[in-house]
Amino acid sequence: MKQIEQYIETHKDRFLEELFGLIRIPSISSESSHKGDMVKTAEYWKETILKAGADKAEVMPSDGNPVVYGEKMVDPNAPTVLVYGHYDVMPVDPIDLWDSPPFEPEIRNEIIYARGSDDDKGQAFMHAKAFEFMVATDTLPCNVKFMIEGEEEIGSPSLGKWCAENKEMLKADVILVSDTGMIAPDIPSITTGLRGLAYWQVEVTGPNRDLHSGLFGGAVANPINVLSKMIAAMTDDKGKITIPGFYDDVLEVSAEERAMLAEAPFDEEEYKKAIDVKELSGEDGFSTSERTGIRPAFDCCGIWGGYTGEGAKTVLPSKAFAKISARLVPHQDHNKIAEQFKVHFESIAPASVKVEVTSLHGGQGYVSPIDMIAYKAAEKAYTDVYGKRPVPVRSGGSIPIISTFEEVLGIKSILMGFGLESDAIHSPNENYPLIQFFNGIKTIPVFYKHFAEMMK
Amino acid sequence: MKQIEQYIETHKDRFLEELFGLIRIPSISSESSHKGDMVKTAEYWKETILKAGADKAEVMPSDGNPVVYGEKMVDPNAPTVLVYGHYDVMPVDPIDLWDSPPFEPEIRNEIIYARGSDDDKGQAFMHAKAFEFMVATDTLPCNVKFMIEGEEEIGSPSLGKWCAENKEMLKADVILVSDTGMIAPDIPSITTGLRGLAYWQVEVTGPNRDLHSGLFGGAVANPINVLSKMIAAMTDDKGKITIPGFYDDVLEVSAEERAMLAEAPFDEEEYKKAIDVKELSGEDGFSTSERTGIRPAFDCCGIWGGYTGEGAKTVLPSKAFAKISARLVPHQDHNKIAEQFKVHFESIAPASVKVEVTSLHGGQGYVSPIDMIAYKAAEKAYTDVYGKRPVPVRSGGSIPIISTFEEVLGIKSILMGFGLESDAIHSPNENYPLIQFFNGIKTIPVFYKHFAEMMK
Repeated sequence: MKQIEQYIETHKDRFLEELFGLIRIPSISSESSHKGDMVKTAEYWKETILKAGADKAEVMPSDGNPVVYGEKMVDPNAPTVLVYGHYDVMPVDPIDLWDSPPFEPEIRNEIIYARGSDDDKGQAFMHAKAFEFMVATDTLPCNVKFMIEGEEEIGSPSLGKWCAENKEMLKADVILVSDTGMIAPDIPSITTGLRGLAYWQVEVTGPNRDLHSGLFGGAVANPINVLSKMIAAMTDDKGKITIPGFYDDVLEVSAEERAMLAEAPFDEEEYKKAIDVKELSGEDGFSTSERTGIRPAFDCCGIWGGYTGEGAKTVLPSKAFAKISARLVPHQDHNKIAEQFKVHFESIAPASVKVEVTSLHGGQGYVSPIDMIAYKAAEKAYTDVYGKRPVPVRSGGSIPIISTFEEVLGIKSILMGFGLESDAIHSPNENYPLIQFFNGIKTIPVFYKHFAEMMK
Repeated sequence: MKQIEQYIETHKDRFLEELFGLIRIPSISSESSHKGDMVKTAEYWKETILKAGADKAEVMPSDGNPVVYGEKMVDPNAPTVLVYGHYDVMPVDPIDLWDSPPFEPEIRNEIIYARGSDDDKGQAFMHAKAFEFMVATDTLPCNVKFMIEGEEEIGSPSLGKWCAENKEMLKADVILVSDTGMIAPDIPSITTGLRGLAYWQVEVTGPNRDLHSGLFGGAVANPINVLSKMIAAMTDDKGKITIPGFYDDVLEVSAEERAMLAEAPFDEEEYKKAIDVKELSGEDGFSTSERTGIRPAFDCCGIWGGYTGEGAKTVLPSKAFAKISARLVPHQDHNKIAEQFKVHFESIAPASVKVEVTSLHGGQGYVSPIDMIAYKAAEKAYTDVYGKRPVPVRSGGSIPIISTFEEVLGIKSILMGFGLESDAIHSPNENYPLIQFFNGIKTIPVFYKHFAEMMK
């Protein structure tokens, strides 16, 4: 530990300068005007991995933005760690809410401010520097492979196929990912579960054109009224989702694991204050962390129809629409759920309207068992660095590519995230505290050490 | 009758040319760029009334667009008819759906095509020409007053006050209005009821900002989900509105009058086909005509919130909105209903959200008793001209100014409309069949005759 601390101390200005070089390339994957920046960023990563000591690194084509692949094989009998990260970032709007330009990283109060400073340039870069340290000090106990993609923020549309095509090359014992968060700078945690997602658009059509609500109102079904009733019927008054069969495959979490999850500190008053609500609301019989972590959720993400301008225009509209999502938990298959919802939603439509349900997106949930070796190794690494055992945490969010890895490559992931909730990822003034960046670089080699030992 | 037919035959080309002059001025009241056209149209009306034989006519200022007033007093002991009409028209968008320019009237297949050809330039102009005939032939049996306003299509915001200020001048025994329709060219009808209106905007606020639906979904109330449940709760499964006290003042229509109303021909299959719905839907125990005519209705006119763009963006939105309206029936007070809804809607809001209800608009319903003299006179007039007794019809629409007249002036209105459903008022290709225009001019003097006799 002493050795890595010293190494960081000696090289920290260079580490930051190198990270800043990466951040300065505006690699926004959702904006096609940045296509050239995607390639530049991939090249920058290739050079980073090579300079850090990889045997080889290359920028490989995919159906979308290129994937950076690099590796260092130290011993065919040693375990192999596949590091996953992404070099693309989210858009920067609303730009006027940034206190400094998003692609000109700035350190204020020991915090790096920039788009990508955490997600995922800052976090992925920790792995490059931890790797550099282990190579430089000849302490690398595992084979290492890097896979850094450029489409995570748009749902990794090309990586599954790319993985399938390069399955042999990507063989590894675990996938190591820093793209999540921890509870607080002094409370380490490991994300052990991610929710899956199903997402639909629904369209309710009443009359074939907008009607005069005076002349027809009361005799012709109003698609907004109908859509409201249909959405309302999707959950009951105990917060349960009413789609038949919806809970069939839900992985029930044991009382023991629930007790462990409950150890994560949580201040409900603070939580409510931060989002300015008087009361929380959700499925009966579960705590707030459970409601977002181990239970599914049903949320309308958008709704529209009829007159939405100024004032009081009367109309009985022809159509109403909604964007509807369900967060799923491990073992719920998003394809099955997508179909169950479609069948159910269409079946409850009154004969006075036509209803069309289109599935727009989906991803499987993921669970990382706390008894797998990688988890145990990570737990030990955090305990060594932070002086306390990390808390396992189920995140309510989804990283669909993690379950794709398991499906396509047959490899489990370990999610060692060092982000904080205050990092404002995806938002203006995204930031990443230096302490998190350096503690990450410190913790990673310790993980490698324990993992190699435990895999023997 | 012979006399008026002959008069029309002799002057019909001039009648149309004069009407077309009126139509050619694009008097769109909702677009401020047409302010100058409003004054021009009012001046045109003044000249029309004067030339037709009025003692005087003037363009009088109001808080908004001017009101044209004119009169001819034949005998202080004769009854007085106050003719109401409006010279403003609706906007013309979508302009590309018009087959001919909206302000260049064209006759095709014996139908006038132009904005305002029916609503209300064509219909109001019939009164000017019927008046001209009665003056020219010295057969005018009543005193006549004209009140032609320029803000009907924006809800007559200034006319109530203008009436109050000119109450003495406007004294009359009945207000005669042609701004509604009849069932078919060969089925005369008289509109005996109009629905009132209450209109609100509601805003449901959950968290203070849009949240990540993965991280928060399931634990934080989603304002779209909540708004849907609240709207759904406003009506029960029998199509009844659930706002406490909502039906307290509803004028129940007698079995006898319901039987009379049922005489109006109605083809449910045709009705459904025209709007392309498989089933109609509304309050249990009432027919389609009753649901729109004598019963209140609850319609969402618009709804919006969250993400409404392309694709599958996940978000737990901060806010959701709806525009909500209730059509009211006579004796329901829109102010009382507005308050009842606000109190009830806010009271059912769960503690997890904030709800704000704003009343945007309202108008009283109107009922024209079928035993009043003006109704009897109109009934006779139609019977003379059409050879059959007109059907009393309750219209689902609202003309709030009609109930304002009753409140402010204490005068009942008789709604002798000659429009047809196919006239496409407010829509592209608005039109008015020549037969309706000329039959209107024919029927009006007969009404005056019967009305004067019955008032003796």
